[in-house]
Amino acid sequence: MSPRIGQLSVAGSAGEMRRLMTELFPICRSITGDGVRRTLEIVQQLVPLEIIEVPSGTAVFDWTVPNEWNIREAYIKGPDGEKVVDFGEHNLHLVGYSVPVRQKMPLDELEEHLHSLPEQPELIPYRTSYYKEIWGFCLRHDQRTRLEDGEYEVVIDSSLEPGHLTYGELVLPGECEEEILVSCHLCHPSLANDNLSGLAVAVFLAKALEAAERRFTYRFLFIPGTIGSITWLARNQETAQRIRAGLVAANLGDPGSFHYKRSRQGDTEIDRAVQVALRDTGEEYRVEDFVPFGYDERQYCSPGFDLAVGSLTRTPWGQYPEYHTSADNLELVTDESLQGSLEMYLGVVQILEQNRRFRNLNPKCEPQLGKRGLYGSLGGGTEGRDQQLARLWVLNVSDGEHSLLDIAERSGMGFGMIAEAAAVLLAAELIEEEE
Amino acid sequence: MSPRIGQLSVAGSAGEMRRLMTELFPICRSITGDGVRRTLEIVQQLVPLEIIEVPSGTAVFDWTVPNEWNIREAYIKGPDGEKVVDFGEHNLHLVGYSVPVRQKMPLDELEEHLHSLPEQPELIPYRTSYYKEIWGFCLRHDQRTRLEDGEYEVVIDSSLEPGHLTYGELVLPGECEEEILVSCHLCHPSLANDNLSGLAVAVFLAKALEAAERRFTYRFLFIPGTIGSITWLARNQETAQRIRAGLVAANLGDPGSFHYKRSRQGDTEIDRAVQVALRDTGEEYRVEDFVPFGYDERQYCSPGFDLAVGSLTRTPWGQYPEYHTSADNLELVTDESLQGSLEMYLGVVQILEQNRRFRNLNPKCEPQLGKRGLYGSLGGGTEGRDQQLARLWVLNVSDGEHSLLDIAERSGMGFGMIAEAAAVLLAAELIEEEE
Amino acid sequence: MSPRIGQLSVAGSAGEMRRLMTELFPICRSITGDGVRRTLEIVQQLVPLEIIEVPSGTAVFDWTVPNEWNIREAYIKGPDGEKVVDFGEHNLHLVGYSVPVRQKMPLDELEEHLHSLPEQPELIPYRTSYYKEIWGFCLRHDQRTRLEDGEYEVVIDSSLEPGHLTYGELVLPGECEEEILVSCHLCHPSLANDNLSGLAVAVFLAKALEAAERRFTYRFLFIPGTIGSITWLARNQETAQRIRAGLVAANLGDPGSFHYKRSRQGDTEIDRAVQVALRDTGEEYRVEDFVPFGYDERQYCSPGFDLAVGSLTRTPWGQYPEYHTSADNLELVTDESLQGSLEMYLGVVQILEQNRRFRNLNPKCEPQLGKRGLYGSLGGGTEGRDQQLARLWVLNVSDGEHSLLDIAERSGMGFGMIAEAAAVLLAAELIEEEE
Repeated sequence: MSPRIGQLSVAGSAGEMRRLMTELFPICRSITGDGVRRTLEIVQQLVPLEIIEVPSGTAVFDWTVPNEWNIREAYIKGPDGEKVVDFGEHNLHLVGYSVPVRQKMPLDELEEHLHSLPEQPELIPYRTSYYKEIWGFCLRHDQRTRLEDGEYEVVIDSSLEPGHLTYGELVLPGECEEEILVSCHLCHPSLANDNLSGLAVAVFLAKALEAAERRFTYRFLFIPGTIGSITWLARNQETAQRIRAGLVAANLGDPGSFHYKRSRQGDTEIDRAVQVALRDTGEEYRVEDFVPFGYDERQYCSPGFDLAVGSLTRTPWGQYPEYHTSADNLELVTDESLQGSLEMYLGVVQILEQNRRFRNLNPKCEPQLGKRGLYGSLGGGTEGRDQQLARLWVLNVSDGEHSLLDIAERSGMGFGMIAEAAAVLLAAELIEEEE
Repeated sequence: MSPRIGQLSVAGSAGEMRRLMTELFPICRSITGDGVRRTLEIVQQLVPLEIIEVPSGTAVFDWTVPNEWNIREAYIKGPDGEKVVDFGEHNLHLVGYSVPVRQKMPLDELEEHLHSLPEQPELIPYRTSYYKEIWGFCLRHDQRTRLEDGEYEVVIDSSLEPGHLTYGELVLPGECEEEILVSCHLCHPSLANDNLSGLAVAVFLAKALEAAERRFTYRFLFIPGTIGSITWLARNQETAQRIRAGLVAANLGDPGSFHYKRSRQGDTEIDRAVQVALRDTGEEYRVEDFVPFGYDERQYCSPGFDLAVGSLTRTPWGQYPEYHTSADNLELVTDESLQGSLEMYLGVVQILEQNRRFRNLNPKCEPQLGKRGLYGSLGGGTEGRDQQLARLWVLNVSDGEHSLLDIAERSGMGFGMIAEAAAVLLAAELIEEEE
Repeated sequence: MSPRIGQLSVAGSAGEMRRLMTELFPICRSITGDGVRRTLEIVQQLVPLEIIEVPSGTAVFDWTVPNEWNIREAYIKGPDGEKVVDFGEHNLHLVGYSVPVRQKMPLDELEEHLHSLPEQPELIPYRTSYYKEIWGFCLRHDQRTRLEDGEYEVVIDSSLEPGHLTYGELVLPGECEEEILVSCHLCHPSLANDNLSGLAVAVFLAKALEAAERRFTYRFLFIPGTIGSITWLARNQETAQRIRAGLVAANLGDPGSFHYKRSRQGDTEIDRAVQVALRDTGEEYRVEDFVPFGYDERQYCSPGFDLAVGSLTRTPWGQYPEYHTSADNLELVTDESLQGSLEMYLGVVQILEQNRRFRNLNPKCEPQLGKRGLYGSLGGGTEGRDQQLARLWVLNVSDGEHSLLDIAERSGMGFGMIAEAAAVLLAAELIEEEE
């Protein structure tokens, strides 16, 4: 028999997560193309995800699935015929979705197509242009300032043609049809924290849940940012109504503390579950209200859906100096952070799974816990009595309306301790579950 | 065609406001009498206000319009026959509404009619006695302590007889019947901040709005304190129901920062509009809850009316040392404060005028702003994107229920930036106005 | 004619409270037995309470009234035949409800029955075992460590047999049937702050209220902790529904500041009345939310009753070092604290008694207070006008819905000043009481 999710452990998963990220890191992903397919095929070796192909040109709400972009090679040769910038060396060198080019031009004309970071002169920036047909290269500002006048040769051997948008979807059915969504974007090329870390946590969370007895149905989406969630929502409007709670997973490998961005509704079960899970760690964390900037929560929380979806990350996008540069590499990501992130995601899932409402069957005065062996018999002392207190909290608040999460919030006690107290009281037939 | 109020400017009005105040300062005003009439006639040269006369004895709720008071001269002559206190020198020397007197008396008897400020010995206090028939003089404490024994001659050539209560009213009709009220008291004699500054700001706000296309109807009241608002409310009970928002204007020329006193209801549109306007300045300000002390908001916010009327001032009554003394003169008032106050009042009006509710016509996922030129095309960077963020906020929150003020509050972004975003989205047919 | 409760004074009661506590201190009380009876008989000499006897074995909700425990003597004799621990010296030496024993045993076997406090080696702890039949002794840790090997003789001449649970109940009928409950536990042996202080305050509050004209009915319970309130609630389920407000009185003699633990509902009239009374003292105090640990509020606030009962104490249980030790003696309790506690309890009762709702009969604008002598006639000054402000607050908020407590909270003014203003306005026929 499968374990209940409350009993699951994901201890010691950091190595596997890192192995997956190391394999995926060199691949040049974008919002469409073979890099995405290769990535999903590798993930498919770990969890049985379905790979979905949506044709270019498909209307998805106000958007259209774009042409598929693939890239073979791209470089700039200097006046001396040497390659000065080469996509083959680092896939961030090319602006994502650059159109094909094969052209010679002087430096001043080339300059209009170059992107660099004057304040981080040693890093290659990450740039894309999905919906405006241009081309460009990204390079270290140090290098850019050393480019000499003369004629440069630009070669971009890309294709931008009708094809497909590709995404991965994994559904783990549970006892009930209500769904928990975990969504991560996989459209970034060689960037580790944003967002191979999110992908890795999602994959290994899925792997753990796959083996367990599940109350809820779990849906994992591995999608290109923005257009991916829009495409999924456009094709799954009915399914979306079954989403009880969801998280957008990103930036989960950097050494920063956790950060939770609330859903648009702001006080849904997922919002409260995440905050209790974070509180229970005893470590520092930050919580912010919904803002319509960020990742795919922008779409899940658009007013026409308004889903209970938040985003649980470590350092949020744009707030760490390596963000969207070549410094967001595998060294930025620590094993400890990956492991902690996976455990935090599992912890949140465990709260959702165990968050039930009970009814105290002896609501008038306290039941006599002592005669059932559930209360210390020697009165008068003040020794630590957290276990007894947790039981009294469950009894006192369980009126059939309030959930264990309510009790954990109100009491300030750890959710685990409250859930354990409820289990003991249920076994003693002092409470019953409210349907 | 007249400008919309959103486009109005009141830049460079301080000089005109000061000119008006300088002309009005020497006039001896009270709650009735010729000083009030002269004041309103001078204002009438700037804006087309109506001067209303209400006969003494008229019942107004629990009150009665009092007799009209006029004063010709008043002085005290000392034992040596010299005038020691002379109303002709400063109109604060006489207690307002003093009854006629022509009498000789020793110093100790006179003392019972004298008022001075031991802690501000160089200043003349301001005192009145509208509803108890007495007489008295106010003088510098320094002078009072130097008065020598002997016989004094007291002359007050005043009249207190049936006449009228006089007030000014200016109505600027708008597209709709709902009204915005600006009320200021004009019953104070030579006191500049309290309240010629409030009167000046109201006059020049009215002058600016007169020239504009107005959504709302604007009503300006120039009234004696307490009895004036009671009289107006008693005579305009139906009109009062059309007041959507209002402000009591006073103390708007001193160099202090802004202070807003909320309406009795506390969270009406005017309360929120003022607070967003103050917040958007980025400067220090204070907000306090309604208290049934103060100016005419006491009457507008009495439970039988409970209007959405707050009071926006600089330093509140009683909180600056010059308050109700001869030091509240034209030097206390700065051009910068007057100008800033007028702009703040206009800013609040602009929020009220522009505060509409919209409905996102593409509520499922974000619309593609990029293809409409409303979103930067080069992804990946983190450059300032406030304009885009404002558009996303308007789209995300505009469900037909929430107003632009709601969005400015929730987003923390300036109302002007939100209103501009709404205008752009409206032009792009991405939102429609909710009736 | 009896005084109204608003006029009551309990000044100078500390001496009488201390005399009562001194008389009661040596008695060995427990949750049943003759110590409880003797205690109630002594109290009966002060107030006409009824002594109720409930037979052992009576079912009270999930509990059963236990056998009655009485103790005659108990001691331990050392190897040399000398008494080393003697109940006759201090009744804390015996674990409450110890079963009869007459036995010799070596030290290591005896050790299993000894209780001491290594961190407070000079103090005797307080221990009980009501529902598990054991025996034990409590002693100073200093003494315990000096016990020598050898054979000890243990004698406990107790009885634990069917009898009764005894409690005291005093009802002071008022104009209406709604009840104010004051409950204190009397099951502790020689412990002064916990809870002879609570008992003394309750007795002298009752004595004061007995002599007054009462709006509400007052019910005082002198009961053993936990089983006492459970027994009372089981026998008085209908009466319990009439409890409008209640307080559990304990720890009222130590020098600490006041502490209020809210009812389970958290925002009932008693919660607000206590907080206003505490605020009005201007002294430091603490307020905490309901927690299902503590005294009999655990039962009154069980979800099947959910009564508006809080607990007003000085230093809460477990938070002072003398708690449940021999150091909780008459020296810990100060006259000043006892007196202040009694006054605070009376102050809360006075708020409850005077907390009525009124309706402003002139809701449109302020009534003219001046012509009724209720407002200073000389305008213009800023002298202290708290009395006038209180009247304006009562007029402004009295819409028939809001009570004087609401007004005291909203205005920040003392409840007494608000109540006085209401009395003046009522006499002036400006407000009427809302039924």
